[in-house]
Amino acid sequence: MREVAVIGIGQTKIEEHWDKSLRELAGEAVLSAMADAGLDHFDALYMGNMMSGSANFQQHLGAYIADWVGQRYTEGIRLEAACSSAAAAFRTAVMAVASGEVEVAVAGAVEKMTDSPSDIITGELATAADADWERDQGISFVALNALIMRRYMHEYKWGKEAFAGFSINAHANGVNNPNARFRSPISEQDYVRAPMVADPINVMDASPLGDGAAALVLVPAEKVRSAPGQPRIRVVGSGAATDTIAVHSRQVPLWLSAAEKSARQAYAQASLRPEEIDLFEAHDAFSIMAALSLEACGFAEPGKAPLLALEGEIRPTGRIPIATMGGLKARGHPVGATGLYQLVEVVQQLRGQAGANQVPGAKIGMAQNIGGSGSNIIAHILRADE
Amino acid sequence: MREVAVIGIGQTKIEEHWDKSLRELAGEAVLSAMADAGLDHFDALYMGNMMSGSANFQQHLGAYIADWVGQRYTEGIRLEAACSSAAAAFRTAVMAVASGEVEVAVAGAVEKMTDSPSDIITGELATAADADWERDQGISFVALNALIMRRYMHEYKWGKEAFAGFSINAHANGVNNPNARFRSPISEQDYVRAPMVADPINVMDASPLGDGAAALVLVPAEKVRSAPGQPRIRVVGSGAATDTIAVHSRQVPLWLSAAEKSARQAYAQASLRPEEIDLFEAHDAFSIMAALSLEACGFAEPGKAPLLALEGEIRPTGRIPIATMGGLKARGHPVGATGLYQLVEVVQQLRGQAGANQVPGAKIGMAQNIGGSGSNIIAHILRADE
Repeated sequence: MREVAVIGIGQTKIEEHWDKSLRELAGEAVLSAMADAGLDHFDALYMGNMMSGSANFQQHLGAYIADWVGQRYTEGIRLEAACSSAAAAFRTAVMAVASGEVEVAVAGAVEKMTDSPSDIITGELATAADADWERDQGISFVALNALIMRRYMHEYKWGKEAFAGFSINAHANGVNNPNARFRSPISEQDYVRAPMVADPINVMDASPLGDGAAALVLVPAEKVRSAPGQPRIRVVGSGAATDTIAVHSRQVPLWLSAAEKSARQAYAQASLRPEEIDLFEAHDAFSIMAALSLEACGFAEPGKAPLLALEGEIRPTGRIPIATMGGLKARGHPVGATGLYQLVEVVQQLRGQAGANQVPGAKIGMAQNIGGSGSNIIAHILRADE
Repeated sequence: MREVAVIGIGQTKIEEHWDKSLRELAGEAVLSAMADAGLDHFDALYMGNMMSGSANFQQHLGAYIADWVGQRYTEGIRLEAACSSAAAAFRTAVMAVASGEVEVAVAGAVEKMTDSPSDIITGELATAADADWERDQGISFVALNALIMRRYMHEYKWGKEAFAGFSINAHANGVNNPNARFRSPISEQDYVRAPMVADPINVMDASPLGDGAAALVLVPAEKVRSAPGQPRIRVVGSGAATDTIAVHSRQVPLWLSAAEKSARQAYAQASLRPEEIDLFEAHDAFSIMAALSLEACGFAEPGKAPLLALEGEIRPTGRIPIATMGGLKARGHPVGATGLYQLVEVVQQLRGQAGANQVPGAKIGMAQNIGGSGSNIIAHILRADE
């Protein structure tokens, strides 16, 4: 198995891009990653996307975007794993290069959802759940997460305000990220006063949708050397696991088994323990998911993640920084593209390019992308050479 | 790069499966492939599918089907490349095993389309084309292929009846395949009299849609030995290439560049020439596509493929047998699953399990799956050990 390195990153700002088409958005990120890598050719494009078929009447994004960026005749495939589609694209790119089948792979991802009617988007998000046993019963994604959060509060005796820290940290970090959808800080009062979406999830617990695209360029690590201010960044761990697609099928709905398994796979490959991770781009689609991820990945005991937030340990200077560029909550959540934003941000941190949000001395970063209600989880660990 | 072997195959009959749900269909194929392999566990499931989001209100098929077949906590990702989604799933499974990341991979694929309204299916098929420049102008897939066929007839001076051989061969082979949708032979008169769909494509040039699922189990070749009547079957070549997504962007619309490139990649990996291929499961979605594939892959000179059909060279006993179990035309074309039917059939041939359609002494088989109007083409070569 060849080692794989990331040599280029690209992203668009996340917002309502009504003036840009699906391919313009995706192309912007892919071309920007290629420019960052100093390459004008790739062999394969793995595109993460969840809902362009319904939202944009366009599937087949591998060929579509390869053609658009002038890389005709290259391999081009789309990966879909609901909200973890982008991490699936990255993992496929890693395997393609590791296998020796591909020399230069681009993992790209795009989602363009804000100019589609909201019933189409809500319906499309529901295709990540169990159509027969969840969607057809009328339960939405936020409602499923609300049930989980309510259970967590009951089980571990937390009040709702204990979750404020996740949102406050994300928004504080989003302020300094020019690509973030929301760039205003929020206070604990803002959190407590926020309108309810699905009790106990309020607006400040929920991440905003948005349009955006991100991309990374991957090559065999043996072909890359560290340069001043540009350390070689290797993919040292990759793990993927699923869980029951329906939440009600799980014996312990408060434990993200797929998060645990994917993280353990990545730790084992990287020969690392959770304590050695310098930052963790968690999938904070809802604040409860940030908490459950921290616990399943070994950063907090079950039921204790809110303490990490309350004690400031998830800030860039804390013990386990999360959402360092705003997370899903403030940077925004363009569903099928989010996993690559997380990985782009890990690379920014490992390169020392994270500006005011730089995690001091970051050498090892993890990103974890969650699809469905914890039913498909993919984790990656990246490491900067000394 | 580890060598990869196929140790299990499974498929459902292709028909209108109104009595089976999406997961029942997919589960049947996956479980049957696992039983054939003698395994009760896999590490990763790569599911090819094009349109379950719109046709069945269900995406996220990796987690969905892994859960359904009782393989919770394994990796599960969906691959989409329009009509070549299934070959994309197979290629991903090959790379996953080759990279050392996965020990037992299942490539599965499913499409369930016959109980959805036909406008949804036609619209969904159009998401494989260019939404802005093809779909929005009202041109359908069959119309795009009709333009290509008309140009071929003009350029190479063939009458329409020259294409009859492709359809006659496919139907003759479908008779002996219990999983085929159509099992009646047709005559040249049937072909000539068939009602027109989009001139010059008539009903006998066009493959029927259908519901179906297929699956293959892949493991490292070093772990497999040949047994009596069950030779070890290795994946010796894999190639993938895209072309312009819109047909009008191509300088030579009669040359399938992506077919040529993917086949050449596969030949180079396998160190084989076209003459050494014993059978070729071509993507005969329309008879013109069978002709263009034969030419692009080096089995016929440009403009000469109809001769192969007229001279009987595409029959199981001919020089380059195609559609040996009925092809898309008679076995049926469950869009995102077709590529795995092709590969299952190649394995049947290499194992000597193709019954009345057995290609005598078949040791090397190629399958090629086409997505869009030639815009995404994936080729694989399988070889049975002596």
